[in-house]
Amino acid sequence: MLPLRKNIAEMAGYVPGFQPEEPGWIKLNSNENPYPPSPKVVEAITAEMANGGENLRKYPDAASKEARQVTAELYGFDPSWVIMANGSDELLNNLIRAFAGEGDEIAYVHPSYSYYAALAEIQGAKVRTFGLTKDFQIADFPDRYDGKIFFLTSPNAPLGFSFDNNYIETLAERCVGILVVDEAYVDFTDASAMELVNKYENIVVTRTFSKSYSLAGMRLGLAVARPEVVSALDKIRDHYHLDRLALVAATAALQDQAYLLATVAKIRDTRDWFSAELGKIGYRVNPSQANYIFAESPDSNSKRIYDALFSRKILVRYFSDPLLRHGLRITIGTREEMETTLAAMAEIG
Amino acid sequence: MLPLRKNIAEMAGYVPGFQPEEPGWIKLNSNENPYPPSPKVVEAITAEMANGGENLRKYPDAASKEARQVTAELYGFDPSWVIMANGSDELLNNLIRAFAGEGDEIAYVHPSYSYYAALAEIQGAKVRTFGLTKDFQIADFPDRYDGKIFFLTSPNAPLGFSFDNNYIETLAERCVGILVVDEAYVDFTDASAMELVNKYENIVVTRTFSKSYSLAGMRLGLAVARPEVVSALDKIRDHYHLDRLALVAATAALQDQAYLLATVAKIRDTRDWFSAELGKIGYRVNPSQANYIFAESPDSNSKRIYDALFSRKILVRYFSDPLLRHGLRITIGTREEMETTLAAMAEIG
Repeated sequence: MLPLRKNIAEMAGYVPGFQPEEPGWIKLNSNENPYPPSPKVVEAITAEMANGGENLRKYPDAASKEARQVTAELYGFDPSWVIMANGSDELLNNLIRAFAGEGDEIAYVHPSYSYYAALAEIQGAKVRTFGLTKDFQIADFPDRYDGKIFFLTSPNAPLGFSFDNNYIETLAERCVGILVVDEAYVDFTDASAMELVNKYENIVVTRTFSKSYSLAGMRLGLAVARPEVVSALDKIRDHYHLDRLALVAATAALQDQAYLLATVAKIRDTRDWFSAELGKIGYRVNPSQANYIFAESPDSNSKRIYDALFSRKILVRYFSDPLLRHGLRITIGTREEMETTLAAMAEIG
Repeated sequence: MLPLRKNIAEMAGYVPGFQPEEPGWIKLNSNENPYPPSPKVVEAITAEMANGGENLRKYPDAASKEARQVTAELYGFDPSWVIMANGSDELLNNLIRAFAGEGDEIAYVHPSYSYYAALAEIQGAKVRTFGLTKDFQIADFPDRYDGKIFFLTSPNAPLGFSFDNNYIETLAERCVGILVVDEAYVDFTDASAMELVNKYENIVVTRTFSKSYSLAGMRLGLAVARPEVVSALDKIRDHYHLDRLALVAATAALQDQAYLLATVAKIRDTRDWFSAELGKIGYRVNPSQANYIFAESPDSNSKRIYDALFSRKILVRYFSDPLLRHGLRITIGTREEMETTLAAMAEIG
């Protein structure tokens, strides 16, 4: 008998969604960006590969110095307030490892990103969830929350709304532990809690390159937090966690804000157009501040719509969760993809 | 006050060695490979970047299916016995998370890879070390070792010898928990404990692409173990831990065994030549089965040699540890680099 820890032996493990391998699908199920990354990213990776990949034989910069510097300048922080990561998932994982030991509690909003629970299970930490009120505030959040970490996904996935900064401030004040604002989708809206990191020592903001920067395939994320938090995360991460190509990709992507803004503007336009059109055919669509929408079909039988779209090789996201099964999460693709999807949905009726 | 876990707040954090940024150094301090990776690796990465990096916008294969398949075929296991990783460091980390909870004990040989201790500290696990006898066996290893994991670096770093498989079998029998054979350097010798994974359910073998495959910059490793262990590690790893470019690099590197063997043969030749030459100028050199040698200068004052080499822009590794400070660990570079180094050492005297 292998002496596996009980929490590991008993946990189910996170199962990523269905990813079709053959071509011909319109893939609107993983909130990927329909546009390629900035050409500067491709240039930077190609440059790092020069001379027969000679650089690849050498260890990368363990401190991600350049990428941290560029991030710090972009958001107006000292580099000691910034850490890069192998996807924001690495940060969520290591934040739990930094603050929540076995038996300690972390919490998050349900519905949001259920991976927080999987990460807590790995650690042997306890998980608490808070629901949402009708006006998208947190139901029954205590005046003083004693858990080690509270994860707030803003914009919320899959519902698409954002928490405003005044509300986030009240949460930070009520949290004895860390308030992680998971801003994976924030580039698709105008607000951000980033400036609150200056004001509240317990706020940590995480970002990903997987959505707005079109780099899901490169596994990149970052966090902005107090130097004490950054320094703890630096102790916990694998010392060479980011490969050379990911590092230069991160720097190049951050440096091409013009490309980011142009890509994001296209997606926002398509989102707003698609939301309005769905409304015209009887769907109830949550106003979205992300690169997806959450929409309920006229008959609230979203599984039927999911299946009918699937048979047309259009892949969207259906959740069997009772709080979500009335709707579908649909990633915003290109205008053309969304026109095809809209026509299919109109036809399905 | 931020509620950091006590073990995290108190730990020092692992400090990687000095990495000179300006050119002109002969860098023999990190056991990097002096040769570039296989041209097939560069081709595979370039192909994955086609069409303006279009693939990078999409998530990678969470299961690393192709790389696992190729590994399985190479070593003669079913793919369910294989896991890929973001450097073998990720595996060492996740093995601790799988088997050793807070307060549980892990152990390793001192001297070997001290990063095991840092990883255990992060977890809040206890660390025990075992010394070596004069004939390179483990001193005072109990008939029954109850710790959760015993890490055995073979070939040993920095001393360069390997444990033979008969001896590893006796260790596996004495270990109640997992015996991790860390074969980071095994491609530079002829033996391997890989076949023992079939025989002992508690043996896990880890490998890295950083040394023999010249891919330190890409952060790749793998492990072969029972499916129960692989499945536990699959639960613990970030679900998208490897980026698309690392994945295709791993597959291409594994598929070009001819290149691996040719590169390794050159390094072994240079190592054996360099060891013999050092002997002629009075150094005591441990017979090495890795891509470095551990050598003691005639006056046993290795810090003096280190400094004199440093002033000539030749960087080797000196350890202040009382068990190691009589010697230097010198990575085997190209023949030309080692000729320069030998001449410098002869001159330093």
